Amino acid sequence: MINELINKIRKTQAPIVVGLDPQLGFIPQAVQAKAFAEHGETLEGAAAAILAFNKAIVDAVADLVPAVKPQIAMYEQYGIPGLKAYEETVTYCQEKGLVVIGDVKRGDIGSTSLAYAAAHIGTVQVGTKTFSPFHEDFCTVNPYLGSDGINPFIDVCKEQKKGIFVLVKTSNPSSGEFQDRLIDGRPLYELVGEQVAAWGEQAMGDEYSYVGAVVGATYPEMGRVLRSLMPKSLILVPGYGAQGGKGKDLVPFFNEDGLGAIVNSSRGIIAAYRQEAYKSYGEDNYADAARAAVLDMKQDIMEALG
Amino acid sequence: MINELINKIRKTQAPIVVGLDPQLGFIPQAVQAKAFAEHGETLEGAAAAILAFNKAIVDAVADLVPAVKPQIAMYEQYGIPGLKAYEETVTYCQEKGLVVIGDVKRGDIGSTSLAYAAAHIGTVQVGTKTFSPFHEDFCTVNPYLGSDGINPFIDVCKEQKKGIFVLVKTSNPSSGEFQDRLIDGRPLYELVGEQVAAWGEQAMGDEYSYVGAVVGATYPEMGRVLRSLMPKSLILVPGYGAQGGKGKDLVPFFNEDGLGAIVNSSRGIIAAYRQEAYKSYGEDNYADAARAAVLDMKQDIMEALG
Repeated sequence: MINELINKIRKTQAPIVVGLDPQLGFIPQAVQAKAFAEHGETLEGAAAAILAFNKAIVDAVADLVPAVKPQIAMYEQYGIPGLKAYEETVTYCQEKGLVVIGDVKRGDIGSTSLAYAAAHIGTVQVGTKTFSPFHEDFCTVNPYLGSDGINPFIDVCKEQKKGIFVLVKTSNPSSGEFQDRLIDGRPLYELVGEQVAAWGEQAMGDEYSYVGAVVGATYPEMGRVLRSLMPKSLILVPGYGAQGGKGKDLVPFFNEDGLGAIVNSSRGIIAAYRQEAYKSYGEDNYADAARAAVLDMKQDIMEALG
Repeated sequence: MINELINKIRKTQAPIVVGLDPQLGFIPQAVQAKAFAEHGETLEGAAAAILAFNKAIVDAVADLVPAVKPQIAMYEQYGIPGLKAYEETVTYCQEKGLVVIGDVKRGDIGSTSLAYAAAHIGTVQVGTKTFSPFHEDFCTVNPYLGSDGINPFIDVCKEQKKGIFVLVKTSNPSSGEFQDRLIDGRPLYELVGEQVAAWGEQAMGDEYSYVGAVVGATYPEMGRVLRSLMPKSLILVPGYGAQGGKGKDLVPFFNEDGLGAIVNSSRGIIAAYRQEAYKSYGEDNYADAARAAVLDMKQDIMEALG
């Protein structure tokens, strides 16, 4: 799947992931009203609004980008119906030829991580039958528990030819509280990055590893160091757009071949219609606004990369 | 809810959490066969087997212990039907008067953590209606992203009078890979523990804080240090039993009043019927074996605490 993702980045010339993190607050009133008319003001209604919104966005951007990244928390907050909409979103995106990165940030002790890996990128056995419950192509993983919490994911990656992105340096303002603390003179995130490189060597695709890393666009200098520490890990870069990262901030995350990173934007794309720059599209044409925002983001990144 | 949990610990004289981490591999054949007869070898069948197994265990131990801790990964691996069984387990346990600690280990950037907090211990708004999707009483949280990933959980705790347990030092063998690394001469887990104490001061119950900590039974010396760094945080202690922790290892986790810790055992209780000590109960009487294992665990802890 890492080979497929790299090929798609080459083909689209857009190292971009569209973050499908729908919040009811920015789903157009007409979409909500239609869903509520059918399902009432219920969790099912919220889930139906989210799914309809996602499908329109996906239809509008599927030919432009290699991948999407649904953030499972935004679905989990609507309970079982929300998680059904998550799974249906994964299915829909895959049918449209998109690579799906499930932003689930799971991680636990070994036997429990194995269950999470089965849920998201693997399979589970029931009697004589086998199921792939959420069937994402990649998922994000939290490293705080160390190797025995990560290895079950890597085993499943190898078996299924899928991938993970391990949190290394996150995009949020307080990410430094623990991640930047110095250990033998070096920040914790560098140690985690080195470990990602080591984990990645066990599971190599053609050019990049099945084991990637998450490094926030908001920390470009740290991105530069981490890029060189993990030469074979694709870096998933959140924090572009709504969180403050700009095209020029992204350069350090890429290798000299112009590959090596894939940049996520969520609200900046899916809620573009609410921004000054795309307001003229109008609420009803939110999907067209999202397409325009993807094209602008692509130009911003490509200009920065030169 | 922290006051209720402390009161229940006092009343039961059992600082014990039963970990409801069912795996099909140790659910008795008869329970599985009944579920599969009704639902086929499907995710629904697996979920039905898990729920039936859980209910029998809960019925057998509900008068002995204050709390249960379902591990959501074990349900998530069976997809939507599995997560339905998780929510139904939470409901069933609460109906039986048990405090439910959702072992979800969520954590993300602020806006996303807020969605997880809503999903598990808070509420979500759909139009004019309000829902509590998974409605656990407590949940576990991963600290790697720092304060802005934790604060939304604390805000929801204060609003809902619920609680969290933050991962500090986990019970698994490789937990030291990052958690034990020295920062200014002190291990990372101590810094996280100090932060837990600081977070906890913002959200105090009568005796203990809404913000507790997870510290593995497998590291009693570290437990001693963390106990004194976080005097007002209840410590959730996994790793007793199947993972190797023993009664005498637990003493450092408690305060002098005999409170301050609550010890989890999962397989050691729910799969007790497979252990030599409880084999005489037979597979069909797995719930009675679980009750016997709880009573033995209570005695082991009480003798150690003296």
